[in-house]
Amino acid sequence: MEKIAVFAGSFDPFTLGHESVVHRSVDLFDKIIVAVGVHSGKQPLLKIESRVRMIRDIFEGHNMIFADYFEGLTVDYCRRVKATHMLRGIRTAADFEYERAVAQINKLMLPEVESIFLLTSPEHTPINSTLIRDIIRNGGDASQFLPKGIDIRNYL
Amino acid sequence: MEKIAVFAGSFDPFTLGHESVVHRSVDLFDKIIVAVGVHSGKQPLLKIESRVRMIRDIFEGHNMIFADYFEGLTVDYCRRVKATHMLRGIRTAADFEYERAVAQINKLMLPEVESIFLLTSPEHTPINSTLIRDIIRNGGDASQFLPKGIDIRNYL
Amino acid sequence: MEKIAVFAGSFDPFTLGHESVVHRSVDLFDKIIVAVGVHSGKQPLLKIESRVRMIRDIFEGHNMIFADYFEGLTVDYCRRVKATHMLRGIRTAADFEYERAVAQINKLMLPEVESIFLLTSPEHTPINSTLIRDIIRNGGDASQFLPKGIDIRNYL
Amino acid sequence: MEKIAVFAGSFDPFTLGHESVVHRSVDLFDKIIVAVGVHSGKQPLLKIESRVRMIRDIFEGHNMIFADYFEGLTVDYCRRVKATHMLRGIRTAADFEYERAVAQINKLMLPEVESIFLLTSPEHTPINSTLIRDIIRNGGDASQFLPKGIDIRNYL
Amino acid sequence: MEKIAVFAGSFDPFTLGHESVVHRSVDLFDKIIVAVGVHSGKQPLLKIESRVRMIRDIFEGHNMIFADYFEGLTVDYCRRVKATHMLRGIRTAADFEYERAVAQINKLMLPEVESIFLLTSPEHTPINSTLIRDIIRNGGDASQFLPKGIDIRNYL
Amino acid sequence: MEKIAVFAGSFDPFTLGHESVVHRSVDLFDKIIVAVGVHSGKQPLLKIESRVRMIRDIFEGHNMIFADYFEGLTVDYCRRVKATHMLRGIRTAADFEYERAVAQINKLMLPEVESIFLLTSPEHTPINSTLIRDIIRNGGDASQFLPKGIDIRNYL
Repeated sequence: MEKIAVFAGSFDPFTLGHESVVHRSVDLFDKIIVAVGVHSGKQPLLKIESRVRMIRDIFEGHNMIFADYFEGLTVDYCRRVKATHMLRGIRTAADFEYERAVAQINKLMLPEVESIFLLTSPEHTPINSTLIRDIIRNGGDASQFLPKGIDIRNYL
Repeated sequence: MEKIAVFAGSFDPFTLGHESVVHRSVDLFDKIIVAVGVHSGKQPLLKIESRVRMIRDIFEGHNMIFADYFEGLTVDYCRRVKATHMLRGIRTAADFEYERAVAQINKLMLPEVESIFLLTSPEHTPINSTLIRDIIRNGGDASQFLPKGIDIRNYL
Repeated sequence: MEKIAVFAGSFDPFTLGHESVVHRSVDLFDKIIVAVGVHSGKQPLLKIESRVRMIRDIFEGHNMIFADYFEGLTVDYCRRVKATHMLRGIRTAADFEYERAVAQINKLMLPEVESIFLLTSPEHTPINSTLIRDIIRNGGDASQFLPKGIDIRNYL
Repeated sequence: MEKIAVFAGSFDPFTLGHESVVHRSVDLFDKIIVAVGVHSGKQPLLKIESRVRMIRDIFEGHNMIFADYFEGLTVDYCRRVKATHMLRGIRTAADFEYERAVAQINKLMLPEVESIFLLTSPEHTPINSTLIRDIIRNGGDASQFLPKGIDIRNYL
Repeated sequence: MEKIAVFAGSFDPFTLGHESVVHRSVDLFDKIIVAVGVHSGKQPLLKIESRVRMIRDIFEGHNMIFADYFEGLTVDYCRRVKATHMLRGIRTAADFEYERAVAQINKLMLPEVESIFLLTSPEHTPINSTLIRDIIRNGGDASQFLPKGIDIRNYL
Repeated sequence: MEKIAVFAGSFDPFTLGHESVVHRSVDLFDKIIVAVGVHSGKQPLLKIESRVRMIRDIFEGHNMIFADYFEGLTVDYCRRVKATHMLRGIRTAADFEYERAVAQINKLMLPEVESIFLLTSPEHTPINSTLIRDIIRNGGDASQFLPKGIDIRNYL
C-alpha cells in the first residue's frame, strides 16, 4: 500500500521549521502532501495561492512532495487524497497539548489514518508563523526564518 | 445551608465531557446550575437560548440540575443565585493555568464561594468545544462527542 | 449516604497549603480523613507517627476531621474506610499532569470513588513539602510555611 | 555604558504585577522605559495615551523610570532608544513558552540586547490584564489588582 | 535502505500504551526493535531477561518486531543495530519536555537517526509504568493496563 | 552599593548553557559568584573540588567572576557573601515551575535578594547536566556540550 502523508497547516508563511519537518520525514513515506488549510476569519498575510506557490517553489525538484490546499476538515481532505498518515511538527509543550487533542479527535473520526510527530530542531524551536508574520508586517527582515532562497516579497 | 454549585461556561456546544462533570459531582451539592455565560464578540455556533434548551433537554428528569444563562461577571451571577461553590472541569495542563488564574481572582473577589475541580475522564480529555464546533461547522458528524440522544441539528 | 473524603499524601511535613485544602472543603463532606501514605525508600524527615500526631494537633477540635496512616495502595485504603471521595490539592501545572494520571488510574480501579480537586491559594502555591523539608534539614526557619502554632521541633 | 531597559507590553491596564516587576529591577539599570506597544486589531479598554498617562502617574517622582509608546517591532524601538536590555515578567508556564519564543527571536534579530526576566510574586501570579479588563468592562471593582492610588475611572 | 526503528525504554513493565505505539507504527518500518535499556541504580520490578521475554511473548508471530536489551547509550545501540529511526511515545506535556531534550541531544550525537513520535490514545494516557509497578508491588490487579493475555506473575 | 549575584547550582558538570548565562549577565553586576551547592545523597560525576576548579578554569581572566561552593541553604550562603541578586537560567516550562517555587520561597526567606532569570539560547535548550553526565558515564563524547577548551577527563 502506498504511504501518503498529509502535512496540513496554515503555513502563513511556511517557515524553516516546517521545511525541516518535511525533509526529515521524506524517507518514511512514498508521497508527502503539504496542504494549506483555508480558514475564514483570520486576516492572513499571504493569499492561499501564494502560500501554495511558495511551498511548490521550496520543494521544486522533489517529485514526491506536493503542494495543495483544502477547505473544511483535515480528516475529510485526508479521506479524499487517500492519506495513510498525518504529519505534524511540535515545537513547545503548549503546542503539544493542542496537537494531542487534535490527533486524538482525528483518530476517533478517521481511525485508519495515524498521526506521526517530529520535534523541531533546537534552532527552529522559537520560529512560529505568528511571530514571523508580525516581523514581515512591520517591515522587518525575516529571511533568516524562511527557507533558503525564498524572498517573501515575491509572495505578498 | 443549601449547597448550590454554579457550573459556568460558554457550552457552545455542551459536550460529553461537560455532562460527565455534572453527573460525577451531583452528590456533592443540593443544586447545580449549569449557567451559559454570554460573551459578545466571538461568533457563536449556537444561540444562547438554544444552548440553555439543549442543557435542559440533557438533564431532563434530574430535578436538582438547572439550566440558566447570565451576562457580566461569573462572581456577580454567583452572588445573585446565592451559590456556595463554583464547579469546573479541567482537561489539560494548559486549561489548568487559565483555570487557576480565574479561580484565584474569583476567590479574591468573592471569598465565600469555593471553586471545586473535577478532571475529565481519559476518553473525554481531547473533547473541547472549539474542535467540536469546527467539526459541526464543516458538516462533520460530531455525535460521538455529544451527550447521548442529542441531535445537534435541533439546536442550530 | 455518608460522604467520606480521603485526603492522602506523604505530608512530610503537613504544610499551610495542605491545611487550607482541608479547611476549604470541610462543608462538602461529612467526614475528612487525612491519611499519611507509608512509602518505603525515601528517607523521611518526620516519622509516620509524628506526622499523624502533627495532623491531629492541627485539627484538634474539628470533630469531623481525622488523622490516619496506611500502607499499600490508596484505593485499597479508600475501600477499607468506605470513602466516597478522594480529596487533592493542585499547585502547579506539573502537579496537574501527575495528579490527572493518578486520578484516572484510581477511577479505573475504584470507579465508585470520585476525585475532587482544590487549587491552592496564590500565597500557598510555592509551598511544597520538598522545599520545606530542605529548609528544616538545613536548620532554617520554616514556621511561616507551617500551620499556625506548629513548632516543627516537637515532631522531629 | 548606560544600562537602559525597555519594559514593553500592552499594559491594558498596567497592573500591580507590572508595577512590582519595575520596582524590583530598578537597581539593575540606569533607566527603565515602560513602553506601550500599539497593536491594531484588538478592541482596547484604555486608549494608548491613557495608558501612558497612567504609567507616568504611577511612577511619578521616580526620575529614572519613563513612560512611552511605540508602533512596530519591539526590537526596532529598542534600537531607537539605544536599549541594552529588555525587561519581562513571567507569571505562568504558559507565559513562559511564549516569552521564550519571543526572547529567542528578538535575540536573533538584535543580538546586542539581552532579555532579563523576573517572576511575579505569588500574590500577583493570577493577575493578568485580560481578566482585569473583563472585570472593569463588567462594572466590577478591580482596584485591588491595580497600583495603589490608581482610580481606573480617570483613564477610561 | 532498510528502515529499522529502535523503540528503547525501561519497560518495567511493558504496558498497553507501549504495545499500542508499536502496533500503530508497524507499517512505517521494515523492522522494529523493542530494546530494554539497562540502568543500574533503580530497584526494578522485573529482571531484564523477564522484560525481554515478556515483550517477545507479546509480539509472538510478528516477524518484523524484535525484543532486545542494551547497556550504555541509546545512540550507541542504534549505531550497532544500524537503526534509521528512534521510535517514542509521548503521553503528557511533562513527557514532552523531557523527550524533546533527549531527541535533540541524540540528533546532535547521531544526526543520521531521526526520532519519530506517536501520541498515546486517550484511554492509554494515564498508564505509566511507575504507577503500574506501584499497583503490582502492592498486590493490586494491574491486568487492565497490560497487553491482553499477559499474566504478570509469569514474569516476576 | 555593590551588586553581587550568586549563580548557584550543582554544575555536575558546568555546561555550555551555564557558561552562556554567566557571560550574558556579566554587565548587570559588579561581581558574579558561581557557587556549587553541596548535596549529600546523589552519586555525583565530579567531586566538588573538581567542579569548582573547572569553573575557575572556564572563567580564568575574568576578574569579576568567582567560583565557590557551599553547604546548606542557598539563602544562607547569599546572606554570608552579601549577595544582592540570585542569577538563574531557565531552559524549559518544567524548569520554570520549579524555579518559580524556589524563587518565591527564597524571596519570603530573604526579601532583600532578588532572583533574576535568563533564558537559554535555542541551541543550548536541550543541554541539561543529567543527560550530559549520562553521556560521559557511558564513555560518549560530550565535548560539544561543554565550554570550549574543557577536557572533561581533567576533572573526573
